[in-house]
Amino acid sequence: MKIVVDAMGGDLAPLEVVLGAVDALEKDKEVCVVLVGDEDKIKSILATEKYDEKRLEIVDAKDVITNDDSPTMAIKTKKESSLVKAFDYLCANDDAEGFVSAGSTGAVLVGAFMKVGRIKGVSRPALAPILPTAKGNGVVLCDCGANVDCKAVNLLHFALMGKAYATAMLGVENPRVALLSNGVEDHKGNELCHEAFELLKAEKSLNFVGNCEARDILTGDYDLIVCDGFNGNIALKSAEGAATTIIGELKKGIMGGGLRAKIGGLLLKPTLKGVMKRMDYNAHGGACFLGVNKVVVKSHGASKKKSICASILQAKSLAVHKTPENIRQAISSQKENEAVSE
Amino acid sequence: MKIVVDAMGGDLAPLEVVLGAVDALEKDKEVCVVLVGDEDKIKSILATEKYDEKRLEIVDAKDVITNDDSPTMAIKTKKESSLVKAFDYLCANDDAEGFVSAGSTGAVLVGAFMKVGRIKGVSRPALAPILPTAKGNGVVLCDCGANVDCKAVNLLHFALMGKAYATAMLGVENPRVALLSNGVEDHKGNELCHEAFELLKAEKSLNFVGNCEARDILTGDYDLIVCDGFNGNIALKSAEGAATTIIGELKKGIMGGGLRAKIGGLLLKPTLKGVMKRMDYNAHGGACFLGVNKVVVKSHGASKKKSICASILQAKSLAVHKTPENIRQAISSQKENEAVSE
Repeated sequence: MKIVVDAMGGDLAPLEVVLGAVDALEKDKEVCVVLVGDEDKIKSILATEKYDEKRLEIVDAKDVITNDDSPTMAIKTKKESSLVKAFDYLCANDDAEGFVSAGSTGAVLVGAFMKVGRIKGVSRPALAPILPTAKGNGVVLCDCGANVDCKAVNLLHFALMGKAYATAMLGVENPRVALLSNGVEDHKGNELCHEAFELLKAEKSLNFVGNCEARDILTGDYDLIVCDGFNGNIALKSAEGAATTIIGELKKGIMGGGLRAKIGGLLLKPTLKGVMKRMDYNAHGGACFLGVNKVVVKSHGASKKKSICASILQAKSLAVHKTPENIRQAISSQKENEAVSE
Repeated sequence: MKIVVDAMGGDLAPLEVVLGAVDALEKDKEVCVVLVGDEDKIKSILATEKYDEKRLEIVDAKDVITNDDSPTMAIKTKKESSLVKAFDYLCANDDAEGFVSAGSTGAVLVGAFMKVGRIKGVSRPALAPILPTAKGNGVVLCDCGANVDCKAVNLLHFALMGKAYATAMLGVENPRVALLSNGVEDHKGNELCHEAFELLKAEKSLNFVGNCEARDILTGDYDLIVCDGFNGNIALKSAEGAATTIIGELKKGIMGGGLRAKIGGLLLKPTLKGVMKRMDYNAHGGACFLGVNKVVVKSHGASKKKSICASILQAKSLAVHKTPENIRQAISSQKENEAVSE
């Protein structure tokens, strides 16, 4: 199975992207990688690496889309960019079933939408990361930023798509689905929440467990948390900011806290590193753009080879699970049931 | 100056509330406290305490409003509750200029709205906590939960009210005001953000610095962050959840990490405690309910005497700064300017 990789996307591209692809080839012998980007640069990185050459293909692309480009304009006009050529390859080849980029989020979403296309029936594709939890399982947050203004039906679709995603990636049969709100009680929430709550409750294919507070996103008590993209972004970034601040304060406390604190800090260094590693959701792959016809994974902009490798394996796993097809079926069943009940 | 205190509100009332009031009397000789609640219980706690009796008054109230009560119904019908009688005292006495309760948030907001009344011109009162930041200054978040569905003009009023609040509590002349959004660029945000952005930019009395990402709430680069109450709740709770998870994971790592980690943890205990104390926004007082005619401070439900004492001193400080009057003036100037420009 071929995974197409935008070799020039991301702050550390192409070096870390190419190395990540090499690692993925090593870790999973079923994976084939198509690296799209500046052929000379890619080849010079590969020159010192050992890998199975039969499973690696290079597609030359001389142009690059950056964060400064307007996403829609860039996808339309930068035909020779690694991102556009990668999408073109994905669409033109049936055996290419997954896509990974660490490039501009906006351009990846626009490209996926325009080139790969929306699954029939899906009202809005959505971006869904998997966050680590205190219980060691993961939790899918959907949408985390693709759709800033949503209607209730969009949130219902996020739940159906997120369910297919959580089933594939977390290995849970019937994911516990919660709606992000300002309290756990059924009556809590803004207007959008109230409407979405009723739709989610009525959808029999979902294991809807009710509202969830932002405080409990990381407890591990939910497998999938549904929200509009604006709130998802706020929840995700606020958690990131708090984690960064706490770790920063701890470091300040250790450095400025005298000999006792310094020795304590030294002894605890591996523990601290372990915690940061466990809680770093970027290390475990990327966010999946759910609701388009093929698997599209957006890896973090600062991705190192480990994240790129994880994103490639994640894309492969989602393709093996036929997640886009499962989403198509879930949405179409929901629409049929809706039609029957009307 | 009298501060009226709901002695029965909060998980640890009346004990911690009464002890907090005693501490406040000790810390600030200008403060007088009116404790409203079960007189026998209050007196039995006071029996072993030393305090200036001339500055402490008790108003007997036999009933209590709990978190299980419907806020509106409780304020309307529980006339003998400590909360309602405290509000009645506040409204009936000109020298009572501030109010503190650690009771049901809903009931405190409804009570303040119905009894104390909205300042003329304010479209929606809002709840505003002060969060600690990495730079050691504080940042006001407004609204953090009183209004789940907002219009742009509400956010403009949150900014004007929050400015008066930040000036009084943070001691900054011209607070840096930011709008919570899903990115720092001017074009980021949902529909509400876009509209609010234009209003905030056009309001000359504000030092509006643009959009702020949730990741940067705690950096200390802003003095006031404006958002609707739903997003404010998400941002606040998500940060709390992440902090709790990180600290929990660290504890797990220390306990399960062998001798080295255990010794490290022991040595670092004071540092860790210091960090948690610095980052615990509940320890520094309560959230102010801005936009009503007198100073109303909602202390955290789990408030211990230290938080209650801080909330009482905070209420006094806001009254000294004439924050309700400053809010009235800010809103009325904005309306006049609006009328002129139309």
